[in-house]
Amino acid sequence: MEKEKIPYKIYLEESEMPTAWYNVRADMKKKPAPLLNPGTGKPLTAAELSHVFCDELVAQELNDTDRYIPIPQEIRDFYKMYRPSPLVRAYCLEQKMGTPAKIYYKFEGNNTSGSHKLNSAIAQAYYAKKQGLVGVTTETGAGQWGTALSMACSYFGLDCKVYMVKVSYEQKPFRREVMRTYGASVTPSPSMETEVGRRINKEFPGTNGSLGCAISEAVEAATTREGYRYVLGSVLSQVLLHQSVIGLETKAALDKYGIKPDVIIGCAGGGSNLGGLISPFMGEKLRGEADYRFVAVEPASCPSLTRGRYVYDFCDTGKVCPLAKMYTLGSGFMPSPNHAGGLRYHGMSSILSELYDEGLMEAVSVGQTDVFAAAEYFARVEGILPAPESAHAIKVAMDEAEKCRLTGEEKTIVFGLTGTGYFDMVAYQKFHDGQMTDYVPTDEEIAKSLASAPQI
Amino acid sequence: MEKEKIPYKIYLEESEMPTAWYNVRADMKKKPAPLLNPGTGKPLTAAELSHVFCDELVAQELNDTDRYIPIPQEIRDFYKMYRPSPLVRAYCLEQKMGTPAKIYYKFEGNNTSGSHKLNSAIAQAYYAKKQGLVGVTTETGAGQWGTALSMACSYFGLDCKVYMVKVSYEQKPFRREVMRTYGASVTPSPSMETEVGRRINKEFPGTNGSLGCAISEAVEAATTREGYRYVLGSVLSQVLLHQSVIGLETKAALDKYGIKPDVIIGCAGGGSNLGGLISPFMGEKLRGEADYRFVAVEPASCPSLTRGRYVYDFCDTGKVCPLAKMYTLGSGFMPSPNHAGGLRYHGMSSILSELYDEGLMEAVSVGQTDVFAAAEYFARVEGILPAPESAHAIKVAMDEAEKCRLTGEEKTIVFGLTGTGYFDMVAYQKFHDGQMTDYVPTDEEIAKSLASAPQI
Repeated sequence: MEKEKIPYKIYLEESEMPTAWYNVRADMKKKPAPLLNPGTGKPLTAAELSHVFCDELVAQELNDTDRYIPIPQEIRDFYKMYRPSPLVRAYCLEQKMGTPAKIYYKFEGNNTSGSHKLNSAIAQAYYAKKQGLVGVTTETGAGQWGTALSMACSYFGLDCKVYMVKVSYEQKPFRREVMRTYGASVTPSPSMETEVGRRINKEFPGTNGSLGCAISEAVEAATTREGYRYVLGSVLSQVLLHQSVIGLETKAALDKYGIKPDVIIGCAGGGSNLGGLISPFMGEKLRGEADYRFVAVEPASCPSLTRGRYVYDFCDTGKVCPLAKMYTLGSGFMPSPNHAGGLRYHGMSSILSELYDEGLMEAVSVGQTDVFAAAEYFARVEGILPAPESAHAIKVAMDEAEKCRLTGEEKTIVFGLTGTGYFDMVAYQKFHDGQMTDYVPTDEEIAKSLASAPQI
Repeated sequence: MEKEKIPYKIYLEESEMPTAWYNVRADMKKKPAPLLNPGTGKPLTAAELSHVFCDELVAQELNDTDRYIPIPQEIRDFYKMYRPSPLVRAYCLEQKMGTPAKIYYKFEGNNTSGSHKLNSAIAQAYYAKKQGLVGVTTETGAGQWGTALSMACSYFGLDCKVYMVKVSYEQKPFRREVMRTYGASVTPSPSMETEVGRRINKEFPGTNGSLGCAISEAVEAATTREGYRYVLGSVLSQVLLHQSVIGLETKAALDKYGIKPDVIIGCAGGGSNLGGLISPFMGEKLRGEADYRFVAVEPASCPSLTRGRYVYDFCDTGKVCPLAKMYTLGSGFMPSPNHAGGLRYHGMSSILSELYDEGLMEAVSVGQTDVFAAAEYFARVEGILPAPESAHAIKVAMDEAEKCRLTGEEKTIVFGLTGTGYFDMVAYQKFHDGQMTDYVPTDEEIAKSLASAPQI
């Protein structure tokens, strides 16, 4: 039986772990559009970016030609504390669903940050340390990125200042405590500590905050302090580069057993997990060596790819950040308060936006009660309690598997299980109590929010 | 370099996983004392026990002669969803401490129940299902066992009724929601649902509940319903048997690299993790094939081994359960309310009690602020946020490593990292805020509580 041949969990040896990140931009014929200076409308130079980001990260951000970028030994050593992550064959899910599909998921939740975010956090902290910085600033929403960065900074002895979206700060005190365990300082955003925070608080009294607004604060805090830089957990091309470790391991594990996926599915907020997971496979597709279907799954309440516009927009609410060309809902867009979990950013990685625009990737949006139903189903058969974010991918993977059940096709489905849901039990409770609701923004709301995007 | 030879994480192949549990009682010259019927004072028969426990589990409970008991294929398949668990070389901890000691930990937290408890939960659920039962009842304190049992019951389609110590039910609503995600019903204990619950509520109005009291309720609920049996997550010999999978994997991983530990350390509440971890090594010691030091670590606030008495006592507060000969603080003992986390049972596994009494194992107690300091130190260097329970073992492993630093000895230290602390952030917060206190019961308190133990 095949079951004998393919284990439940495919682990690579440490010696088989990637030694270089894969830079998908090198294989893209049409490169993602450059970041623009909002003042001049011209592409940002390395010198300009280096006020905000570490020098090496600026170089990575601008590098769209080198296919591979070596992973420094110090980062590889850290990776070994929680990587390689398992590629799991979902035998129990397949059996329960009665599907002939072969389902695999790459599980990134087996580390204390609870998600894939640590893959980039440790890289960014390393380059900050190497540059001799005192510390870094960042924002966090649901808290996965902030937790990951706190862990990474603690490892390298860097100061870590996290602006946490106010509503999450209040609703997720335990996330905050994990960050404190790792020595980070956590400030609810918008705060009165920064100029932009004070301005937003004045303009929108009693606001719950948003990711875009916390980004503005973190950038201001980094650029007005000696020895600090700003770091970001998604959206940027450098982050997708670091997250390519997910896809490289996935591909190595599949290759080991001669498995070729038909479809690769990932949830998409800013795009770091999806981009990292699909990159090496997309590279093959771009080079004409293989073909795959790629599916980005986003929440119906924050549908940047499926309902946004592909234009230049601000990366943050306070409009202090560069302009990025991306699928966007407008930098002022805020998902409805009933939206649980992450995947709440108004835009999408420039790389993924370009690939989607060229028709190389599909996108679909799903409602949150369906997502939680899939999450619970999955938890009961596969044992893992998924993060709401990850459950978006589960939902669509199960939909694909159900199609296979109906048609009898034995497709191979791979999806990214980005993290665990331990800190999302308030949302699970709402779901159990039948109090979870769905929200889909109207066309008018999106149009209104998009009107603020600069028309470039 | 040795670092090149021994990976950060030693994973066994699925084919190297144990196919039989190891029963340490078979190698004990003096067997643990039998469970007694509290009415007659005579050893309980299989027939008597089978009113409370599943038949196969009764057989395992009474079996002190078979060295190996095969693990049914269905359980081995489930194990493959989250096992083998990694044996981690704590390179970062060693380096940070500057110790020549070689530190390994067996990490059991990489599953959604967050602890080793799942190893026995799935076995007990399997035998209940095999016997054609409708469901099982149990108690839970900190919630790890209840979560594990909920997952196991959901896998086999069994009804699962959990009595959760009232104070934990109120303080840990998220634990409760995880159990609900897996379909369990969770009742705060003492409840008004059972006779014993009503009696305890009447006798101690406003009580916060205790493990011993929740056990009484769960046993009553099982024995008064058709098609139900009671299951327990620690203390019993059958549980130590199932948990031997921890020790067997640890030993196989060490053997693979020719490593012989000098000292093996585990936290001890009821003793399931420690017993499981040390069993195969203890077997070698009992058979005269090798020698090891074993150290049980218990909280200073609930010090059954270090300050209890080795006598027959009730396993529960309501005195409806059998009598077990064990190190006990008295069945009415309740740790001070400022005690965080688990390890709050008044007694200790009969197997471990006997081994300790014969001088084959050491025991030490530690204060909780020291434990949380060790937990935070460990989290920052090794990346894993430990459960407070597990941090007891970390504390003593670090103490041993520190001794090596002072003497220059290159000892090999192995400890059990039983689980993660995601649901213990209230306690971490207290620690961060400097509000955590230590409590050590007085001799008078222990003597008073012990006075209730039957003097057999």
